Amino acid sequence: MATLSDIGVSALINILGAFAFLLAFAFLRIQPINDRVYFPKWYINGERASPRRSTNFVGKFVNLNFKTYLTFLNWMPQAMRMSESEIINHAGLDSAVFLRIYILGLKIFVPMAVLALLILIPVNVSSGTLFFLRKELVVSDIDKLSISNVRPESIRFFFHIGLEYLFTFWTCYMLYMEYDYIASMRLRYLASQRRRAEQFTVVVTNVPHVSGHSISESVDHFFQTNHPDRYLCHQAVYNANKYAKLVRKRDRLQNWLDYNQLKFERHPDKKPTSKTGFLGLWGEKIDSIEYYKQQIKDLDKRMILERQKILKDPKSILPVAFVSFNSRWGAAVCAQTQQSKNPTLWLTKWAPEPRDVYWRNLAIPFVSLTIRRLIISVSVFALVFFYMIPIAFVQSLANLEGLERVAPFLRPVIELKFIKSFLQGFLPGLALKIFLYILPTVLMIMSKIEGHIALSTLERRTAAKYYFFMLVNVFLGSIVTGTAFEQLDAFLHQSPTQIPRTIGVSIPMKATFFITYIMVDGWAGIAGEILRLKPLVIFHLKNMFLVKTERDKEKAMDPGSVDFPETLPSLQLYFLLGLVYAVVTPILLPFILVFFAFAYLVYRHQIINVYNQRYESAAAFWPHVHSRIIASLLISQLLLLGLLSTKKAANSTPLLVILPVLTLAFHKYCKSRFEPAFRKYPLEEAMAKDILERSTEPDLNLKAYLADAYLHPIFQTFEVEESEMVQVRVDKHQTHVASPVAREHGSSSPANYVHHPASPPEYVYQTASPPRYVYNPSSPPHYGYNSFNPPHYFYHNEEP
Amino acid sequence: MATLSDIGVSALINILGAFAFLLAFAFLRIQPINDRVYFPKWYINGERASPRRSTNFVGKFVNLNFKTYLTFLNWMPQAMRMSESEIINHAGLDSAVFLRIYILGLKIFVPMAVLALLILIPVNVSSGTLFFLRKELVVSDIDKLSISNVRPESIRFFFHIGLEYLFTFWTCYMLYMEYDYIASMRLRYLASQRRRAEQFTVVVTNVPHVSGHSISESVDHFFQTNHPDRYLCHQAVYNANKYAKLVRKRDRLQNWLDYNQLKFERHPDKKPTSKTGFLGLWGEKIDSIEYYKQQIKDLDKRMILERQKILKDPKSILPVAFVSFNSRWGAAVCAQTQQSKNPTLWLTKWAPEPRDVYWRNLAIPFVSLTIRRLIISVSVFALVFFYMIPIAFVQSLANLEGLERVAPFLRPVIELKFIKSFLQGFLPGLALKIFLYILPTVLMIMSKIEGHIALSTLERRTAAKYYFFMLVNVFLGSIVTGTAFEQLDAFLHQSPTQIPRTIGVSIPMKATFFITYIMVDGWAGIAGEILRLKPLVIFHLKNMFLVKTERDKEKAMDPGSVDFPETLPSLQLYFLLGLVYAVVTPILLPFILVFFAFAYLVYRHQIINVYNQRYESAAAFWPHVHSRIIASLLISQLLLLGLLSTKKAANSTPLLVILPVLTLAFHKYCKSRFEPAFRKYPLEEAMAKDILERSTEPDLNLKAYLADAYLHPIFQTFEVEESEMVQVRVDKHQTHVASPVAREHGSSSPANYVHHPASPPEYVYQTASPPRYVYNPSSPPHYGYNSFNPPHYFYHNEEP
Repeated sequence: MATLSDIGVSALINILGAFAFLLAFAFLRIQPINDRVYFPKWYINGERASPRRSTNFVGKFVNLNFKTYLTFLNWMPQAMRMSESEIINHAGLDSAVFLRIYILGLKIFVPMAVLALLILIPVNVSSGTLFFLRKELVVSDIDKLSISNVRPESIRFFFHIGLEYLFTFWTCYMLYMEYDYIASMRLRYLASQRRRAEQFTVVVTNVPHVSGHSISESVDHFFQTNHPDRYLCHQAVYNANKYAKLVRKRDRLQNWLDYNQLKFERHPDKKPTSKTGFLGLWGEKIDSIEYYKQQIKDLDKRMILERQKILKDPKSILPVAFVSFNSRWGAAVCAQTQQSKNPTLWLTKWAPEPRDVYWRNLAIPFVSLTIRRLIISVSVFALVFFYMIPIAFVQSLANLEGLERVAPFLRPVIELKFIKSFLQGFLPGLALKIFLYILPTVLMIMSKIEGHIALSTLERRTAAKYYFFMLVNVFLGSIVTGTAFEQLDAFLHQSPTQIPRTIGVSIPMKATFFITYIMVDGWAGIAGEILRLKPLVIFHLKNMFLVKTERDKEKAMDPGSVDFPETLPSLQLYFLLGLVYAVVTPILLPFILVFFAFAYLVYRHQIINVYNQRYESAAAFWPHVHSRIIASLLISQLLLLGLLSTKKAANSTPLLVILPVLTLAFHKYCKSRFEPAFRKYPLEEAMAKDILERSTEPDLNLKAYLADAYLHPIFQTFEVEESEMVQVRVDKHQTHVASPVAREHGSSSPANYVHHPASPPEYVYQTASPPRYVYNPSSPPHYGYNSFNPPHYFYHNEEP
Repeated sequence: MATLSDIGVSALINILGAFAFLLAFAFLRIQPINDRVYFPKWYINGERASPRRSTNFVGKFVNLNFKTYLTFLNWMPQAMRMSESEIINHAGLDSAVFLRIYILGLKIFVPMAVLALLILIPVNVSSGTLFFLRKELVVSDIDKLSISNVRPESIRFFFHIGLEYLFTFWTCYMLYMEYDYIASMRLRYLASQRRRAEQFTVVVTNVPHVSGHSISESVDHFFQTNHPDRYLCHQAVYNANKYAKLVRKRDRLQNWLDYNQLKFERHPDKKPTSKTGFLGLWGEKIDSIEYYKQQIKDLDKRMILERQKILKDPKSILPVAFVSFNSRWGAAVCAQTQQSKNPTLWLTKWAPEPRDVYWRNLAIPFVSLTIRRLIISVSVFALVFFYMIPIAFVQSLANLEGLERVAPFLRPVIELKFIKSFLQGFLPGLALKIFLYILPTVLMIMSKIEGHIALSTLERRTAAKYYFFMLVNVFLGSIVTGTAFEQLDAFLHQSPTQIPRTIGVSIPMKATFFITYIMVDGWAGIAGEILRLKPLVIFHLKNMFLVKTERDKEKAMDPGSVDFPETLPSLQLYFLLGLVYAVVTPILLPFILVFFAFAYLVYRHQIINVYNQRYESAAAFWPHVHSRIIASLLISQLLLLGLLSTKKAANSTPLLVILPVLTLAFHKYCKSRFEPAFRKYPLEEAMAKDILERSTEPDLNLKAYLADAYLHPIFQTFEVEESEMVQVRVDKHQTHVASPVAREHGSSSPANYVHHPASPPEYVYQTASPPRYVYNPSSPPHYGYNSFNPPHYFYHNEEP
């Protein structure tokens, strides 16, 4: 058990470590060679060009302007400078609300820490004795500051109970204010948004097959009947898996072509050649440029055929459709109502925004969904409680003897002493480490199997599973020793009143462990986050070995989104720790405060400079954050109840019983008061926007605007460079609409449709130059959408 | 413990008892004097007149036609003769579906009983020994037929587990088929209904107060903005508690007037007089007829003033409105969508049918609702688990010593030996008996406090609470001895795996108790139900002492509805018993089968001849019935699991663990598959009905039809006798519509509006004779509605 000074030393080491990380970051970020790693968001916005173009050779890689080294910490004020509404414009509402969670943590825990330290520490310390505790518990200095130091049956427990009440009310009050603010923020955001396809569109799943009619005809007929005057058009969803494979292949070929052309441009004397055999190692020598051009031409023909086949064959149309209405009101009505007598048919819900759609899950039938969810629930339960079993099995195999048996030729190497000791220390933990590393991916795959149709939902579901895992295996697992499976077994054989006691009584003893955890996982983790060591290394490795073209470089620097499925659950774990220890061992609170403040700064910087959100869900994750903080509150109350009941504080403990009931009631109230704002779209709001739009843009051609918004992205991944290519699509039920002339990211405008009212049937590529598809690899699933809608939202604060 | 022959004797006694009841019923029902007790439904329908008018004096009271005594059991075939669709026409869908629950019981348990008796009894009996059971358990013959007789660790338990699987699948299959059938029945019923006010109407609660605007103006403005083209009109809700008091007073006076006039007609020589003092015992002697006429006249003036005050004063308008639309589609959309940004304002849901509205709860604000529900949840929990505490306290007071102390003058009487022994046996149980008698009323009051706005919802909520009470106190309370509170305490200190064991192990031992319970509570209870002893006695008592006029007699014979809050939970208890004992002690099943068959016959008879449903919810209670049978299945599986684990059947028990998971998954599937049919109204359906109506009745004046449908019933309780009275109401926002010329029950038609497009403002009673309000006391809360809509629905079976 650590003494106070041990904790101090540990804190100092961690602070120094974090400081070293920050210094490294400050140094690395101003090197031009790393510019794309630390400021990718600005490249994507198109507001920053490579600083390497302008300087000399050395200056391309190393920052020679020594003045900038003196101001190496200025990223902090820079990060704070942006206002909240600017952040919303810059990075979206999701990111802005994500930052607010840290602020909420500070708001909740700063007054708590002050009060707890001022009141409880004197109460605990002066209370004076740990004599009554059982002998086998080793007593540390930290324990003297904690509730353990209070004598059983002491009247001083009223302080703890009173503060628990106060903290609960304070937390609930802050949660209420925050939920209220974020709900109105969301509504304001949705109201201030420009016209967007998803405002008019509803996704309809489980469209029934009617013999003699195509899916499209059924959809048209159904909605023309049941939503007359409001139904506008629909977009069928094609089963395009085979076509997607061709697109990927073409993309690869195109990349090789670009590479060879670039090579040829640089060295016009040497025609690039390659071999046709395996991996280009042997076979006939050919002209690379000609070869790839020919390959692409062949592939294009196949793709056109495949496209036509998909669009013509009724079987390739899935029983799903994106149905658009001529007003937001009509879409809001359709999304919130039941359409058919059979509630498993014609299921409607809001369409996710096009780049948020997870296309593969669209066509899962209703019964299959039920079964999938059942299986995944059981699997998650098994994963959380029994994951140690297969790992222990693998560990028993992956020892030195096993290795020698499998690969006897390695024996001489293994038997070397230092290698042997390294392997012995390394191998047993390897399986567990690999498991923990791939866990988020596994959980994401599970969520995908569950059949959610939006990426945002997938990430939220993954976060929920991950939180469950952390709660059981990190929080409970650290408090009650033994694997989760052993705990489960023990809990099943204990009485329900005994469980909070068992856990409660060990809580004060684990305070030092969690303080260390906060420093190592929290502080160091955040410092590592800003350093971005992994992306930095990967970026340079890729640049060195893999990058062939400019497009590859863009792909290599793709920063991705904030990793919600991992970040949110860890964040919520800190809320849990803070709430549980606020009354028990208040000395833990300052460590959490440092974490929240530091993480807020870092993520603010990252969101401004690095991350590029794949989708915008308008803070749809907030209800989950809220309810998990409520769950933490409940856990803290139950554990305190258990702890106090072991302290024989019989006269004071019953006072706590009412607290969980009140907390649950508060949660229920919040749920009905605010959650609809995150799940439904009020008609009042929809109507107001419709009226406004009708008065400002009376002659809007909405049908043209919506026509291709929900076309599968692989049909939209065509970009025009220099030449003008117009793709005309003919659909029986739609006016002839040309696909947009897409431009570079960010600079496209949403209304650049070319209208061809009389074009020949079938697909015709009207190209001035030979058709040249350029597939943009930097963001395959959503690029096509970006070319329709600007990636940044215009957030107009209604209040001046 | 009872032997088999004990059970046989008990069964014989109960069968004889039930037979005696049936004989008594058969005898009583053909006496003309009881005709109104046993056939009130036909009187209400107007299809039966008193048989007492046509015969001589003795024949008025006693049936002298001795032939009818020979066919005294012919009510059974009579009850079976009506087809299901006829029952729906005659008594409504609620009643028809209620009967189907008994059929469902037979469908589930007949094959189960056959299989269980054929397979399990031989397995159990031949297994041969109860030697291994603990000594303190007394062994009975019944136990030899039960699972107790199987040796621990026996391989024979696979039979029981196999059958539990089979029974679960069979029950789920039957439940699925039934849910499917009833859902389509409900939709067909709703589709085939005539035009009804609630199809077009939505109840809007929590209308916000806008300063400078009345509630009516707010409602008009809001819905004209957000539902243009569809909003038709609305009906404000008045706070009419004071007026309702006047109506009740006037009703009393009118009754006295009628009584005196009748007296005067019979004895024209003697003018009836009465005294003005207390209870008419002293004071000035006056002419009764003149006195009451004057009183009524005064009251009428006050009522008119009060009415005008209510209708004029904006403060008497509650922030609630019944909003009507010009199409079912519009109403369906409004009921299912969120209206306002603030989800606690402008809450919309389907309006209950007018006679189903519980007017008092309409104006409860949102926050209050949350608090009320919290308080009631806690109270119900306390009531179920701690109800013995106050009763024990009252019991400790209500003993002989206490009685003597309170009333010393009673001492000589109490000290008499036989009175003393009677009181000693009677007093302690009295408090409990009174409590159990008033329990449904208490639960109903609790449900009313919860704030539900429809009588049907109130009854469903009461049934849920009552079921919870029965489950804990009858089922668990009989198995585990001790009060519910003691059980709760014991369970809290046991491990979760121990609880099913503790209960499971005592289950086979309680089989004889439950067999007796089924015979006494089930068989005898049902026989008592058909005899209607209590209503019979009350009717004759009332007739003898209280009935003054014809209206009083109608009131005295009012049969009321089937008592769902009590009947449904008891019924579900039998499902629970059957499912729990099917595998454990299969000999119990035949007793349950007899109950279901007998109860089906009796309730069929009662629904055809006696009960008159107050409202029609179109089987809205079915989802509750379904989910409680599922809950019974789960309980039976867990208890079998616990029982088997005490039998050390370690190799077979784990097989059972998967069953609850599958059952839960089935429940979840059913919920999403069928429940929307009971909660929402599909747009497809609404649109189809709208189109049909528009083509058949193109010039329908819907506004006139809906104008007064949701007027508070006390404003509608005026009836015209002989003279013609037209009450004209003027409303700023509505066309001038005359109230209907109401007629006797059952014979009114729904379209007898008189249209007065130009009538003077304010209320004018255009009467040919002096205004004479006749308030119909037989069914005060819904009579006014009956005069608008026929009380019986026209059910057109779509299939031939």
